[in-house]
Amino acid sequence: MFTIDSLNYSKFNRDYLYELKKGEVTVVHASVLDLWGSTKDTFNNIAEWYRFLRENNDLCTLVKTGEDFKRAEKEGKIGIILGIQNTSPLEDNLSLVEAFNNLGLKIMQLTYNNQNLIGSGCYEEIDNGISRFGKNVIKEMNRVGMVIDLSHCGPRTTIDAIKTSTRPVAVTHANPEWIFPSVRNKNKEELGTLRDHNGMLGLVLFPNMMRGTNTTLEEFADLAAETADFMGPEKLGIGSDLINNLKDLNWVRMGRWTHEIDYGSGKKDDPAKPEFPSWFQSPADFPVLAEALTKRGFSEKEVKGIMGENWLNFFEKAFKSEETEKFSPA
Amino acid sequence: MFTIDSLNYSKFNRDYLYELKKGEVTVVHASVLDLWGSTKDTFNNIAEWYRFLRENNDLCTLVKTGEDFKRAEKEGKIGIILGIQNTSPLEDNLSLVEAFNNLGLKIMQLTYNNQNLIGSGCYEEIDNGISRFGKNVIKEMNRVGMVIDLSHCGPRTTIDAIKTSTRPVAVTHANPEWIFPSVRNKNKEELGTLRDHNGMLGLVLFPNMMRGTNTTLEEFADLAAETADFMGPEKLGIGSDLINNLKDLNWVRMGRWTHEIDYGSGKKDDPAKPEFPSWFQSPADFPVLAEALTKRGFSEKEVKGIMGENWLNFFEKAFKSEETEKFSPA
Repeated sequence: MFTIDSLNYSKFNRDYLYELKKGEVTVVHASVLDLWGSTKDTFNNIAEWYRFLRENNDLCTLVKTGEDFKRAEKEGKIGIILGIQNTSPLEDNLSLVEAFNNLGLKIMQLTYNNQNLIGSGCYEEIDNGISRFGKNVIKEMNRVGMVIDLSHCGPRTTIDAIKTSTRPVAVTHANPEWIFPSVRNKNKEELGTLRDHNGMLGLVLFPNMMRGTNTTLEEFADLAAETADFMGPEKLGIGSDLINNLKDLNWVRMGRWTHEIDYGSGKKDDPAKPEFPSWFQSPADFPVLAEALTKRGFSEKEVKGIMGENWLNFFEKAFKSEETEKFSPA
Repeated sequence: MFTIDSLNYSKFNRDYLYELKKGEVTVVHASVLDLWGSTKDTFNNIAEWYRFLRENNDLCTLVKTGEDFKRAEKEGKIGIILGIQNTSPLEDNLSLVEAFNNLGLKIMQLTYNNQNLIGSGCYEEIDNGISRFGKNVIKEMNRVGMVIDLSHCGPRTTIDAIKTSTRPVAVTHANPEWIFPSVRNKNKEELGTLRDHNGMLGLVLFPNMMRGTNTTLEEFADLAAETADFMGPEKLGIGSDLINNLKDLNWVRMGRWTHEIDYGSGKKDDPAKPEFPSWFQSPADFPVLAEALTKRGFSEKEVKGIMGENWLNFFEKAFKSEETEKFSPA
């Protein structure tokens, strides 16, 4: 089965590649670790990724184009998509969209939790949508074929971005908030707009975006079924949000922007990094998801779609530059 | 007369210090030139200012504390306040407020025209006020005694910031928009809130914030009189916004955030740097303002206040850290 994880925020090492192999993950979107990174930080982090890919090129390979997906599968190597969960690496420079795209950073989340130069994050009290610079950035991402990710964006920024973008966008890792209430999940207006603009949603397994650590595999399958009813099963994928090999979430939540504790999706009485459910501890557990979806009544075609082929179809087109791929919006 | 210019965006050189001397300017807020500056850019620019101050220490001196104002006057040197028209130098690091303050950067405008990590600028379509990071920055600026400037901020960001700040804030260079309509000028709600929170307004001589290059000196005096009626004459000063020794405004308006022309306060059919009125071409012309205010009927005390003593009283308190100066809000 062509399996794609549309968001993984783990620290990758050689052992981790074996975990991915064990779970038969074909391609994984590896989120570059410092999601508050400046231009220089992210440039350095991508350079480190190049070294990792070179040193482990018997096991993995960089995925930058639609063709790379099939090549990775054929070579039996784990395909790595590089992305980042913030536009902070652009700083204030519109020209850096193309430069980072050419480096292989193929997915960029517009905002991470907080407001930035482009839009607002889901934890801001007020979300004012896309800024002047943000409109320019979206246009440029569309042109070069860099995927717009809206997972941690606020509702208005999410909807504005979907409508501003001339190409379909992605929510790589979130669930419907009417199923599992969380500021980080997406409401009906956001997901309805995403669906109507041919966007993709990656269902997330981060416990705070479900019913906590004790969420059952059956509940996850129910979530998938209910979401498929709303979105259509062909617009669904899996974005695990696995955070393996990282000790805590303090940096992720607090960066340098506050001197007090921010709990993010955690709670004051339980601020730590939450435990993933026992049935989903690492990429090795991906096959249980396919089993659960089948058991829940999804067809074989639908299961294959959700496990990877839907993302495959989406990314194959989305990674092309506008010059080579004219998207038809319907 | 103790004369203070609360905003000058010129390229300073030794000749310019003589111009300031000619105009009997006692203290000038020199806006650090790269208003899109990153942490490193601004650190470098301040370092260049240190060198300039050292090489010209017979003519000018850095003003960092309330005491420095009187010292500059006593020594017969031009006092230089360093400030910047953006919070971009903070990038995402709250700790840098204290660090830049200790370097002598005593005034910081929260936003410049566009949205940033802290709030929105006056040219954004939608202004969502102060962000989570922005609240932390305001608290920290209050603590260390760095003046919050709101001149280029959007209306909601302006009002939010005035109310969020526990110490009086400044609009160093803007006019009432009901007298001279401009997105860059301030409306009654903004200026009323500023007044009611003991803030200061620096009347600006930038032609696009008045009736253009042909604005007469009498019209400027009328503007001062009408604004004084609204704000109280003791809450007014002069923030010239002089832009001497700079060729054009392209960088200021467009930075790196757009690949198309942005006209800022200019017009499409007249996008260039506008000419200042003939009666106000450089700091040497400051004395004509005092004459015009006197002629318009302001008392000697009021003229002295507007020309500099109001800013002096404000800055003497505002530059103190919260630990040494407990502001009384009334």
